[in-house]
Amino acid sequence: MLVSGQSYRTIWMPDDATVRIIDQRRLPWSFDLLDLRTVAEVAHAIQDMAVRGAGLIGATAGFGMALAARESTDEAHLARLARSLIETRPTAVNLSWAVNRQLTAIREAGFPNRIRTARAEAQRIADEDAAMCAAIGQHGLAIIQEIAARKPGQVVNILTHCNAGWLAFVDHGSATSPIYAAHAAGIPVHVWVDETRPRSQGARLTAWELGQQGVPHTIIADNTGGHLMQHGLVDLVITGADRVTSHGDAANKIGTYLKALAAKDNGVPFYIALPTSTLDLTLGDGVKEIPIEQRGGDEVTHLEGIASDGSVQTVRIVPEGSRAVNYGFDVTPARLITGWITERGITTNTNQHQSRSASIFA
Amino acid sequence: MLVSGQSYRTIWMPDDATVRIIDQRRLPWSFDLLDLRTVAEVAHAIQDMAVRGAGLIGATAGFGMALAARESTDEAHLARLARSLIETRPTAVNLSWAVNRQLTAIREAGFPNRIRTARAEAQRIADEDAAMCAAIGQHGLAIIQEIAARKPGQVVNILTHCNAGWLAFVDHGSATSPIYAAHAAGIPVHVWVDETRPRSQGARLTAWELGQQGVPHTIIADNTGGHLMQHGLVDLVITGADRVTSHGDAANKIGTYLKALAAKDNGVPFYIALPTSTLDLTLGDGVKEIPIEQRGGDEVTHLEGIASDGSVQTVRIVPEGSRAVNYGFDVTPARLITGWITERGITTNTNQHQSRSASIFA
Repeated sequence: MLVSGQSYRTIWMPDDATVRIIDQRRLPWSFDLLDLRTVAEVAHAIQDMAVRGAGLIGATAGFGMALAARESTDEAHLARLARSLIETRPTAVNLSWAVNRQLTAIREAGFPNRIRTARAEAQRIADEDAAMCAAIGQHGLAIIQEIAARKPGQVVNILTHCNAGWLAFVDHGSATSPIYAAHAAGIPVHVWVDETRPRSQGARLTAWELGQQGVPHTIIADNTGGHLMQHGLVDLVITGADRVTSHGDAANKIGTYLKALAAKDNGVPFYIALPTSTLDLTLGDGVKEIPIEQRGGDEVTHLEGIASDGSVQTVRIVPEGSRAVNYGFDVTPARLITGWITERGITTNTNQHQSRSASIFA
Repeated sequence: MLVSGQSYRTIWMPDDATVRIIDQRRLPWSFDLLDLRTVAEVAHAIQDMAVRGAGLIGATAGFGMALAARESTDEAHLARLARSLIETRPTAVNLSWAVNRQLTAIREAGFPNRIRTARAEAQRIADEDAAMCAAIGQHGLAIIQEIAARKPGQVVNILTHCNAGWLAFVDHGSATSPIYAAHAAGIPVHVWVDETRPRSQGARLTAWELGQQGVPHTIIADNTGGHLMQHGLVDLVITGADRVTSHGDAANKIGTYLKALAAKDNGVPFYIALPTSTLDLTLGDGVKEIPIEQRGGDEVTHLEGIASDGSVQTVRIVPEGSRAVNYGFDVTPARLITGWITERGITTNTNQHQSRSASIFA
């Protein structure tokens, strides 16, 4: 996608020993590229959220394994490096998916061929991610076109939570991909961007990337979506997901569940956009079974911004001595979800699967 | 309530010409008293949220009318000053309630007696507010005692949104009053404090006042409550209200509706605590009829905190050029509310009133 009018992906290898990323910790204040040259640097970049988002975490782990193939002296060493990548974030399933795919590829090619194999497989994972997101955009576009056809000449208002944009993937994004496709098709769209506390990925990343592509948008406090839906100001909600179970339950950024409840209460369609690599068909009941990452309370108690002198400042925004907890994700039960947009098409919720044990994605 | 171990109310008149308030714009960074000596200063203090919260806005308007009685040269002038107070905030009903009560008192006593009359009536409004909040505490205490009895020896977890604490009233608070009563009665309570973006009244004010009274509490992002409820970590939700209709629909700080949806979805009791002065029985359907204040987008795009050098700094937390909207309140429909705690007792939702036109508070 575009940054200052120039095309970028979020991650690539400029040479065989270097993984280059956009350092998302510094966005939107500063657009910086960061080079990672060891598995430890890759693990730290994932852990510290220099890269984040379901697809990009997977792609980064894939490229991290390309570096691991170079670093590793034997198969046990490679397995340890693989584990160090998987352990960086517990909720996103793409992480273990990408690492295990690399381990399988290396096993099949034989350990002596690991470097070339892992490099090629990493690129394939990234290219497939971009292609899946592009396909999600085309399938989701049909939903937006249908809404636009019902209100000719009027703006289609779409609410999204967190950043499931191109910054969360290799390109295009999941939740944003239908929006970019609609914008490109000339449909007048406007995006309500949930701020997404505590890390403000909506206000910082989604607003920034929509701005870079020229898509009209408005930032709102996370508290606002329900009111907007009560008053007919939201036509459609699309979010991403970090893990979706066979029942269709979706782990996504904390607060997604609240928006899904409001959408249900107001008859607003609520879609989850995801590449099928985000599916975890080994799990059924997402609320009970998906592990939810707890992060440091300092992400709640402190916040970074631009001071009046233009410098980046971190300020404490709570009384001294008050503690905070920080759950990174919540799980939206399938019963609140209108449908799932994947690269294969749209799975519509028939509301019949809730008592079934079979996967709705079969 | 206590500040550094000393008892305070939020507003009082140290002499006949001065209204003294706690400047809530500077909390929790600094505890400052501010003297208001003209109606214009009072109106500005309400508008700029140096004082805020349903009860305190009413009490401030009452004291403002005591100053208006001194300033006014004739009845028309008094009416103009009264209107300037009412027009400061559109959603809170206590504002017009207190001003009209003063106008009635002055009319009955006769314009020549206005100064003494308005001074005494202002004090009565404030004293009644404190007494109503104390009574709300005793009624609400019964709800907490009942929960505590079901989990002996365990902590009762209560979630609240925004600040309906003593800082929002003259003393005790509405939503916090049962919590303070339970804490005083030796029940182990813990409060989940919603940050309450965009103005962060939860993180700034509720956390501060709970800390001053020694009540255990944890600040959470507004996105978090649904996840906590899904996992049995919330026993009870209590919030305040800025206006409650005859149907029981409650306007309160933006985001309250989302927590009410989550409470309903998880079988968590959801109570609104309010003095009856917050009732507006002229209205029925709150979602359609209660006017919702829109405030400046800068409250979303900028945030104040303490920088590492100890200074108070305001930082921009969104990309340059991204716009924001800022709805101050939303309306929670009565169907999501378990009961209303007023100074008169608890009105339990029988779920029968929704199709009735009669008031549930009759």
